[in-house]
Amino acid sequence: MSANSPFSGVSRRALLPALAAFPILSLLLPTRATARRTASDPLSSWNNTASKKAILDFVDSVTAHGSPDFVPEDERIATFDNDGTLWAEQPMYFQLLFALDRVKVLAPLHPEWKDKEPFASLLRGDVKDVLAGGEPAVAEIVIATHSGMTNEEFSQIVCDWIAKAKHPITGRLYTEMVYRPMLELVAYLRAKGFKTYIVSGGGIEFMRPWTEQVYGIPPENVVGSSAKVKFELRDGKPALMRLPEINFINDGPGKPVGINEHIGRRPIAAFGNSDGDLQMLQWTMGGDGLRFALIVHHTDAEREWAYDRDSSIGRLDKALDQAQAKGWTVVDMKSDWKTIFPFGSKSEGREAR
Amino acid sequence: MSANSPFSGVSRRALLPALAAFPILSLLLPTRATARRTASDPLSSWNNTASKKAILDFVDSVTAHGSPDFVPEDERIATFDNDGTLWAEQPMYFQLLFALDRVKVLAPLHPEWKDKEPFASLLRGDVKDVLAGGEPAVAEIVIATHSGMTNEEFSQIVCDWIAKAKHPITGRLYTEMVYRPMLELVAYLRAKGFKTYIVSGGGIEFMRPWTEQVYGIPPENVVGSSAKVKFELRDGKPALMRLPEINFINDGPGKPVGINEHIGRRPIAAFGNSDGDLQMLQWTMGGDGLRFALIVHHTDAEREWAYDRDSSIGRLDKALDQAQAKGWTVVDMKSDWKTIFPFGSKSEGREAR
Repeated sequence: MSANSPFSGVSRRALLPALAAFPILSLLLPTRATARRTASDPLSSWNNTASKKAILDFVDSVTAHGSPDFVPEDERIATFDNDGTLWAEQPMYFQLLFALDRVKVLAPLHPEWKDKEPFASLLRGDVKDVLAGGEPAVAEIVIATHSGMTNEEFSQIVCDWIAKAKHPITGRLYTEMVYRPMLELVAYLRAKGFKTYIVSGGGIEFMRPWTEQVYGIPPENVVGSSAKVKFELRDGKPALMRLPEINFINDGPGKPVGINEHIGRRPIAAFGNSDGDLQMLQWTMGGDGLRFALIVHHTDAEREWAYDRDSSIGRLDKALDQAQAKGWTVVDMKSDWKTIFPFGSKSEGREAR
Repeated sequence: MSANSPFSGVSRRALLPALAAFPILSLLLPTRATARRTASDPLSSWNNTASKKAILDFVDSVTAHGSPDFVPEDERIATFDNDGTLWAEQPMYFQLLFALDRVKVLAPLHPEWKDKEPFASLLRGDVKDVLAGGEPAVAEIVIATHSGMTNEEFSQIVCDWIAKAKHPITGRLYTEMVYRPMLELVAYLRAKGFKTYIVSGGGIEFMRPWTEQVYGIPPENVVGSSAKVKFELRDGKPALMRLPEINFINDGPGKPVGINEHIGRRPIAAFGNSDGDLQMLQWTMGGDGLRFALIVHHTDAEREWAYDRDSSIGRLDKALDQAQAKGWTVVDMKSDWKTIFPFGSKSEGREAR
């Protein structure tokens, strides 16, 4: 364990070797060759379409001194969904892929799983059968793999996994499956005095070990779903034990609640991609003064994935209707984004390696 | 409502007139006359005793470049209890005084309270009878006065109250009942790159409206107990409704849990005054590297109040034993603090006005 900060200490040591070999960090720290381009265009991976213009206009309006829409830095709160907004979420949420991997690792300690669903199906390789069990089956797998250890131990497990595990389709690290235009946007807002937060349905402790390296968003700016946690002394040493019980689901109507609990201020800008983000966008737009809501619409089957109203993961239906009715910014990934992933597009995943 | 940030907007408007007339802010923004003294001594309200030396030594050790105990700024997390640590808590928690005042205001809307305990006793003026009902009676009063409105409406109620209500013994505003040495300490740590948080058993939304003005601690750095909150659309407008149900008690073993949930890092320094802070101090000291734990011991019956092991409010018993056994810093208010309140001492309260 590193001194003073178990989470960031652990994650730095585990992640840096993996990240150093990869251009994510170079996005945030541009080389001299790209410096001129990014200096003049902080959103260089965005095409010059209406979406980009809407972002730049909003930021100018709330940051220019003397602007009637000026907002002091303290109140420039921007919240980002994670799955499908900052990184990909297909063929299923990456945290679920993590949980499935953990079941395989833990199986030798649980001989009873061979005869117990949903574990039995999973161990036979029938992931579709597992998912057919719906939320209860998924919840059982998540609880079995996310509890029974301290938070620090869980953080280390996440670090070890995310430093090595590969995406089943692209063969890339999960931390490479991030959207380059969104990384630019997060960094741009921060440079303009915004406080950037992740507000995700995903597990808060699943994200915290790596969000600072990948997005520049520190643990205290991560809001997510959580397990119940209990303080106890283990051999006289204080520990936070993860219990097999859900504490809070930070999704849908839970997002404004989580935002209020953690931040205590209403965002002036929010970014999502699915119906699970609808209430966060409504809450953001419901305040006074100039505000900004953006939806990432997955329209590019070749470079990423194309899905919306009928998708079981990242369904975008009601929020798309509301965005259209209210004039929120809807990013068409296919036409608005010059590049998708730092390594290019989905199809280039394996080939480029 | 002000633009963009309901909480800070509301609180600023309501509080600034009250605070402007008062020297709290001038503590943080010293006049030219005091600038030289505070520049050379950031803790000028502290006597030159072992407690002050322990603070200065710790801060030097973790902030001096090249020090073996150096801690990067990101990880300099300092957590402060509020009641009895940053402001007074006698003759009872100020939030309870707020709740009692609210019962009187709301009584005309609740004719049934005349015959219903604990409200009936309270409305007859028998506060002691109310408190004799213990936690259930207090919980009933807090729930009745803290729910049934939106968070923003509650925030406004708190602002209106705290801008005018007077302490029953000193006749001072509650925001004046703060400890000048602790305000200096909070400001000093922040100047040294620490992130300062309140971690209180008090209600998170009771504190957020005024902590930024009084302590320089913004809403997102306040951790506290909370009511369940529900997102809903009221006449099409999104609102967070406060439900008559407790969500989380951020006290005792709840404090490390609340710290983890909100901050996601372990503090390197923590400050409390009662057994309700014991686990926060244990959690802080349980990490690797140099750490700091401090207990404010209420020893000055003349200038403030004197209480510890037998007090029903702010009981300091197990935590005092542990502090003595482990060598944590215990502030003796009587000998360690040159001044207590910005206006002087308890007895000077009424006379000075």
